[in-house]
Amino acid sequence: MRTIKDPKEMQAYSLKMKGQGKTIGFVPTMGYLHEGHLSLVAAAKTKADIVVVSIFVNPTQFGPEEDFRSYPRDLKHDKKLLNDFAVDILFFPSAARMYPKGSQSFVDPGGLAEKMCGLSRPNHFRGVDTIVSKLFNIVQPNLAFFGEKDYQQQLIIRKMAEELNFPTKVISLPTIREFDGLAMSSRNKYLLPEQRKQAAILYQVLRLAKKEIKGGEKNSRRLLSRLRRLMASAPSLKLDYLVIVDPETLEETKTIKGKTLIALAAYIGKTRLIDNLVVETK
Amino acid sequence: MRTIKDPKEMQAYSLKMKGQGKTIGFVPTMGYLHEGHLSLVAAAKTKADIVVVSIFVNPTQFGPEEDFRSYPRDLKHDKKLLNDFAVDILFFPSAARMYPKGSQSFVDPGGLAEKMCGLSRPNHFRGVDTIVSKLFNIVQPNLAFFGEKDYQQQLIIRKMAEELNFPTKVISLPTIREFDGLAMSSRNKYLLPEQRKQAAILYQVLRLAKKEIKGGEKNSRRLLSRLRRLMASAPSLKLDYLVIVDPETLEETKTIKGKTLIALAAYIGKTRLIDNLVVETK
Repeated sequence: MRTIKDPKEMQAYSLKMKGQGKTIGFVPTMGYLHEGHLSLVAAAKTKADIVVVSIFVNPTQFGPEEDFRSYPRDLKHDKKLLNDFAVDILFFPSAARMYPKGSQSFVDPGGLAEKMCGLSRPNHFRGVDTIVSKLFNIVQPNLAFFGEKDYQQQLIIRKMAEELNFPTKVISLPTIREFDGLAMSSRNKYLLPEQRKQAAILYQVLRLAKKEIKGGEKNSRRLLSRLRRLMASAPSLKLDYLVIVDPETLEETKTIKGKTLIALAAYIGKTRLIDNLVVETK
Repeated sequence: MRTIKDPKEMQAYSLKMKGQGKTIGFVPTMGYLHEGHLSLVAAAKTKADIVVVSIFVNPTQFGPEEDFRSYPRDLKHDKKLLNDFAVDILFFPSAARMYPKGSQSFVDPGGLAEKMCGLSRPNHFRGVDTIVSKLFNIVQPNLAFFGEKDYQQQLIIRKMAEELNFPTKVISLPTIREFDGLAMSSRNKYLLPEQRKQAAILYQVLRLAKKEIKGGEKNSRRLLSRLRRLMASAPSLKLDYLVIVDPETLEETKTIKGKTLIALAAYIGKTRLIDNLVVETK
């Protein structure tokens, strides 16, 4: 595996490969890789000639009070994992190279960024769309892979790529979970043992939602109050949001039918975790 | 010359050509072509294997009270001109294809868009950056050509292309002028004969600025008041702005030295015209 740090060198490499008719599969990450990331890498390996993984903890998607500085990093371990998957290129740029002094252009997702996570993280998705646009222009991927754990993120990126006509297909893949259902996340590392135990309730809430909907529940309000009651059984969890929405528009659903997204975010101590499930009914 | 209307077809053509190692030169226009546009086409012809010209009157860069509907259009004449230049592809998409219903992603230029033309046209440059990003993604140009007449526009686009890492080099070319110095513009068509005559004062103001600066004038305030006096000699012109600024930051210059941009916008009746000149001193 070759590591490239310079965006211009990365772009030149990709343009050269595409000029030779090669396809590029891309997995953008913030590093501290887990099985969720690796499932994306594995998919990229099967679908593209060349696989590029980026590791970049993107400052513009963190709020001033958030965990940019403390976000877990372990480049050595990440490199080992990516090497084992025979990834072709690790793109590992510095923040100074990605955002030269005076940079002021950004990509704004519009209304989808004002719901769910956007409410407690006001400029988060603007930072996401900006860095992903930059990375798409640098890496020139035919295919880019994202995890469904970050449901709103992959939706916003998919729409952005379509609306701005990027020649990149955005592919989303299922959330990978721990033994007890907790969605894999680099931030799980922050959890103390007792917090980690209680974090499992998040997936139980989603499973209950699925069971109730499959069992015929159509009333969002009634279902939400039942889910909140279960949530309350884990006293160290503070709910940020719990919503039942349309998976394409993120508009709240009153009467559940067709494809429905159940999504939530909660704080455990200072750690903010998110999870979601798409449920389909007739 | 082949005309392509479908963005996906245009993109597929460009990707195919680039896969064959061909370079693409691109001239984005709103049509109603004049010698200014044609000078860009001529430059593209000398620098790229394939030349693509787009004609698209972009709704997102017009304000609600502006001339989107009345903007002059003459596709038949434009096609003839482009054919004479042996342009390879005319990309001529519909607004419905370029902005499918529900589109909400946009590209924001940041602070440079809040100066000069941005003050009287609040969302103009956001519309410009958005359409140019889309066109760059569709046409995949190695080189894109813009006119210096729209100084702020070419600056904002150049910064945007650099900051978002587009693999496209933005090239700006000198303003082409009428016999009396009026900058060529599709909007000149709006002018009545008497308005057309008085419009020549705009370039005279710029010429005076250049002469005074070359003659040693360093005081922006004093120079501006002299320029405004000359401007006032054409009673049908209503000044929107007249500024002496740094050509890279668009920050106002107090003491003139080095490269300096003199830029102006004025209304003649309902027609808004812009012009500028970059003057260099030691």
